Amino acid sequence: MEWPMLPVITAFRNSPDRGQGHARDMRVRWALEEVGQPYDVKLMTFDELKTPEYRRLHPFGQIPTFDDGGPVLFESGAIVWHIANKHTGLLPKDPDGKARALTWIFAAIDTVEPPIFQRALCMVLERDKPWFAERLELLDQQVRSRLGSLSQWLGDAEWLDDDFSAADLVMVTVLRRLESSDLLKDYPAIAAYLNRGTGRPAFKRAFATQLAVFQDTQAHPGQPPEV
Amino acid sequence: MEWPMLPVITAFRNSPDRGQGHARDMRVRWALEEVGQPYDVKLMTFDELKTPEYRRLHPFGQIPTFDDGGPVLFESGAIVWHIANKHTGLLPKDPDGKARALTWIFAAIDTVEPPIFQRALCMVLERDKPWFAERLELLDQQVRSRLGSLSQWLGDAEWLDDDFSAADLVMVTVLRRLESSDLLKDYPAIAAYLNRGTGRPAFKRAFATQLAVFQDTQAHPGQPPEV
Repeated sequence: MEWPMLPVITAFRNSPDRGQGHARDMRVRWALEEVGQPYDVKLMTFDELKTPEYRRLHPFGQIPTFDDGGPVLFESGAIVWHIANKHTGLLPKDPDGKARALTWIFAAIDTVEPPIFQRALCMVLERDKPWFAERLELLDQQVRSRLGSLSQWLGDAEWLDDDFSAADLVMVTVLRRLESSDLLKDYPAIAAYLNRGTGRPAFKRAFATQLAVFQDTQAHPGQPPEV
Repeated sequence: MEWPMLPVITAFRNSPDRGQGHARDMRVRWALEEVGQPYDVKLMTFDELKTPEYRRLHPFGQIPTFDDGGPVLFESGAIVWHIANKHTGLLPKDPDGKARALTWIFAAIDTVEPPIFQRALCMVLERDKPWFAERLELLDQQVRSRLGSLSQWLGDAEWLDDDFSAADLVMVTVLRRLESSDLLKDYPAIAAYLNRGTGRPAFKRAFATQLAVFQDTQAHPGQPPEV
């Protein structure tokens, strides 16, 4: 299917994760790289995310948005799903397989990510609080519960359901937040799954592209915002 | 479209929310009521959720699952999306409108629900902790930030995007967790939106049905599990 224009996504001009690829544009970049779809990026400052103009596109003032000439979409899960349905390569062809893939996208975002994201937030926001150790222990337990279930599901399988799909793409981006923890060492099936995901050429291209944005912003902090 | 069988969902035999309708089967029941699709329910004890047999259907041992003769689905967001696509009444007919509706389903689950759910968890798990007041204040701020954005988006509109859709259904179930807080009084547009949602006959039927399950379990605690 031909696009009427190059799709345009929004991303942080100066990502708070310092180019580690945890910002949600990474999922969309990776999906576009997997299907071989070139795209443009509109970089946003934090001030620009708060403007009424941007809030009309993204009511919560976040990145990414996605514009391919149809209605502007937001939420990385919905955008990845949209891309996966417009192109081949990220979803099974049968409706049953597609329904299962969407189930796993929601599982990644709604069931696996919350404790992992809360743990990451806690590491940043509550490190100096007197309750930090106790809260972290609680969150670690919640993360381990999810990892245990996921590990059991995966077993020796390469991907969540047969071939690599949009669901694996989202799940891998969720699990990457644990790369800097020591939690994955008890779940070798998940560590191997994560390595298979981040070892894909399309992942590497997407990662390099978002890292280059951050490095460029660091090198040229005073450049005017893109219009 | 005819179903090959009555769809079967799983739900708690003894819901931890004591029939308040916050368990995730509520979304699926409501969606089925909106489209007029009868369904069967398989009630699950906590022990049954942990069995290997159930984990093959739901890897994380949660409710609901959904079985209409195709692959068994889990994750309420994916199930509601599946129902909305099989029937008329819960989605716009054009692909653009559908993509926007999925965007809003993800926004409800991925952006609005997390701070609301974390706040609810904190009220239960951390009420006796010395840090409770400070944590609650932090979470209230996060919830207010989302409510402010949502309220601004809604303005005077009746629903998120034109007609009532699956996205409103999911968003209303997310917001219901705040009914017992005093946070909604500062957001009259959201309070009115919530009332419009819970005032729908299909919501009331779904709510009554899940409440009846809880009441029946309380009245007959010793009944054997359904097979």
